Amino acid sequence: MNYRAVALPIGRLLIIIAAFMVIPAGADLIARNPDWIVFTISALILGTVGTLTTAAFSSAAPDLRRRETFVFVNAAWITFCTAGAIPLYGSGLGISFTDAFFESASGLTTTGSTILTGLDQLPPGILLWRSLLQWIGGIGIVVIGIWLLPGLRVGGSQLFALESSETANKPYGRIEPFLKRLITLYGGLTIACTSLYILCGMSVFQAINHALTTVSTGGFSTSDSSFGQFGGTAVYWVSIIFMLASSVPFLFLIRRIEGKRADDRQQIHVLLAAVGLASFAIFLSQRWVQHDDPFHLFTVSVFHVVSVITTTGYASTDYLTWGSLVICIFFLLTFFGGCSGSTSGGFKMFRLALLLSYIRVLLRRMIHPHRVLSPRYDGRPVGNAVMEGVFVFAILYAGTFALFGLAYAGLGMDVLTAFSGSITALANVGPGVGDIIGPSGTFQSLPDAAKWLLSLEMILGRLEIIAGLVILMPDFWEEA
Amino acid sequence: MNYRAVALPIGRLLIIIAAFMVIPAGADLIARNPDWIVFTISALILGTVGTLTTAAFSSAAPDLRRRETFVFVNAAWITFCTAGAIPLYGSGLGISFTDAFFESASGLTTTGSTILTGLDQLPPGILLWRSLLQWIGGIGIVVIGIWLLPGLRVGGSQLFALESSETANKPYGRIEPFLKRLITLYGGLTIACTSLYILCGMSVFQAINHALTTVSTGGFSTSDSSFGQFGGTAVYWVSIIFMLASSVPFLFLIRRIEGKRADDRQQIHVLLAAVGLASFAIFLSQRWVQHDDPFHLFTVSVFHVVSVITTTGYASTDYLTWGSLVICIFFLLTFFGGCSGSTSGGFKMFRLALLLSYIRVLLRRMIHPHRVLSPRYDGRPVGNAVMEGVFVFAILYAGTFALFGLAYAGLGMDVLTAFSGSITALANVGPGVGDIIGPSGTFQSLPDAAKWLLSLEMILGRLEIIAGLVILMPDFWEEA
Repeated sequence: MNYRAVALPIGRLLIIIAAFMVIPAGADLIARNPDWIVFTISALILGTVGTLTTAAFSSAAPDLRRRETFVFVNAAWITFCTAGAIPLYGSGLGISFTDAFFESASGLTTTGSTILTGLDQLPPGILLWRSLLQWIGGIGIVVIGIWLLPGLRVGGSQLFALESSETANKPYGRIEPFLKRLITLYGGLTIACTSLYILCGMSVFQAINHALTTVSTGGFSTSDSSFGQFGGTAVYWVSIIFMLASSVPFLFLIRRIEGKRADDRQQIHVLLAAVGLASFAIFLSQRWVQHDDPFHLFTVSVFHVVSVITTTGYASTDYLTWGSLVICIFFLLTFFGGCSGSTSGGFKMFRLALLLSYIRVLLRRMIHPHRVLSPRYDGRPVGNAVMEGVFVFAILYAGTFALFGLAYAGLGMDVLTAFSGSITALANVGPGVGDIIGPSGTFQSLPDAAKWLLSLEMILGRLEIIAGLVILMPDFWEEA
Repeated sequence: MNYRAVALPIGRLLIIIAAFMVIPAGADLIARNPDWIVFTISALILGTVGTLTTAAFSSAAPDLRRRETFVFVNAAWITFCTAGAIPLYGSGLGISFTDAFFESASGLTTTGSTILTGLDQLPPGILLWRSLLQWIGGIGIVVIGIWLLPGLRVGGSQLFALESSETANKPYGRIEPFLKRLITLYGGLTIACTSLYILCGMSVFQAINHALTTVSTGGFSTSDSSFGQFGGTAVYWVSIIFMLASSVPFLFLIRRIEGKRADDRQQIHVLLAAVGLASFAIFLSQRWVQHDDPFHLFTVSVFHVVSVITTTGYASTDYLTWGSLVICIFFLLTFFGGCSGSTSGGFKMFRLALLLSYIRVLLRRMIHPHRVLSPRYDGRPVGNAVMEGVFVFAILYAGTFALFGLAYAGLGMDVLTAFSGSITALANVGPGVGDIIGPSGTFQSLPDAAKWLLSLEMILGRLEIIAGLVILMPDFWEEA
């Protein structure tokens, strides 16, 4: 195990995180809030640690091989969630380190669950930092999802491997040609979203914060009422469009923008079909119940469906008061997630598409046992290894969901809070179901043990479970 | 499609069902209850229909080929659930046909959900008929599970195919050598269970009824309080032993009784491990909460875990008042089910064993990409086709559970009732979670549409979903 190759990129990324802390420090300085000192000191500490680490290991072989990559992704999540928590813990919020870590993990994993209330009264530095955590996490997730996970063959994601010089030890394609374009796209989406939010009537500060958490499908807000603070329907449609844009594969967007033929459409189709179906069902079930303008009701239905399925987690109203069917739909939508290669979490649409294709194949095989039939993705047959990865991911997803749910119930949470808390963390959505952690509640009142477990589950979700479990196997640590 | 080959065995089985109706007719005649006429007339009608069908098609080729078998299992379930409902509908109960069909389907599929209350006051004929439906269903399920499903390769069950002269058209091994031994074993278990129940203080009538519904892992009782009407701990341990015996593979039992080497141990180990783990967790969580004698508490914990995991569904107390963790454990246990080749429903332990083995293999493969590793069952490597069957079953199981749950929510049931109702029907357990359909409730108050859907879901559970879905594919009906 080449720990130097793991430490070097972590050191570099720490410097980047430290650099970002200058932004909330500046905002608090302008607002004359003393937290600017906390952000500055945190930036100095993390910047120093990052610089020293980078300098100490700069001679290390830059190659992350397979086993080092697993260690890197695990270590990176733990390190950055801790780093992000430092200014929150030191700030005037006066929260425990447990709460600070939970908020930081919820931010960087772009989950969006919060332990804070009274957001509207918070100083700008804290609010900006929360939004920036999600924005940084978002681009990190895209890069890991496009570059590292396919090479590690996590959960069938090798289907999307970049053209690579595959060897057992350096299994990734080259990310460099894409990195600049990814960052440009992400930045461009953020600026466009900010501008449109301002046009729809948000203040500049609101617009920046919400744009940062929209394009990262994060869901943190600057107000306890989340999108409920905004009137009209235009702002909702802007949000819907950018949440959807950030939950389709970023490489697809880049290829389309460059006018190239783009593959990987099937998961976008499944995503849009799921959004259409769920929105329509909710709209129909409420159409004659709520005395609301039909277009407004339709807007709100689509907004909440998109918010949950893209794993963003904004809310404009407590949709859990809309009856049992709507609660069940949102509970199930929490499992889905958007497309791979985006900022979305969850099960991912390509896996759903492959499962649907596979089940059709199997049923037809039972009728015609001698016909050769394969599941297909984007019209091309898909190999066994990919399908196995998808199946195993599905089983682990269900198992992780159930085991963490049991743990939360054991910590005294009621059945719905326990299970919906488990899936909203694992799928990195944000709100759960029920009074406590629903769209109008917060995670504040949960016991500390539950907050640590939820933080762990959010990170596991971002490791697509498998990359986290692998390092727990005794085999992993045997020198090959 | 050779419909004659489908009709002939259905005709024969109708005669058997009609013959069984003589028993409740006799019981009601002795008790001077007018329902004896209803049972006698029902027996005459069904006997006549069965005899005419058999006579009309007795010249048909007796071979059920692959496609005919799919039609047969579907048609058989619909026919026999309808046949079983006739005397319930005609009896003095005064229930709707919907309720009669639900009760009959719940009986024959050995689910054990009921729409009846005031069981203690019912005439003996109705009570016996309910118990007999479960007993007949139980042996039918064992035969279908051992003989037909492996040949149809449903959900990985080909792992247990009898030595067969496999061809595409007649894919089953010979059941004849086993049929007599299966019936002897089943009858023997029933008699032993009855005798022990009497020794533990049940009346003869109670003992017969509960033995019929114990060895079939059905769960109907002669009292609204189910096992709550019996004191002491001995009767619980008798029930635990016979529920467990009926949820291990019957061929394993036969081979062991005959002193032969018996395979197929792994699913028994997983079943016992799950029972141990869940019982222990429940016992520990209640040990210092409830002021109960520890041995009694332990007995009751094991009894309810075994009752749910074997898909029997007896209850002695409302365990849902034992707190959130216990509710969650029981909700999850509802999914599991016992072993294949038994009277149990649910996901089945061999699938769980294969999934666990497979996940270990996959994680090790990620560490050692070039090592050849296979999942194993009973120490032998398991092929791809079996694993695929298991994976697809898992996905369909989850999907069916979720879709029916949504439908129940749409019919106005609350979230927990909707989802736990869905899984308790699909896994053929009996009680759900919540006040309405929990162990102390009944399914009476649900809307008719929900009762039909639940009946359908119970039957789908017994068709292991796939055998029901296949006949919905347009391909299926194309002449080959």
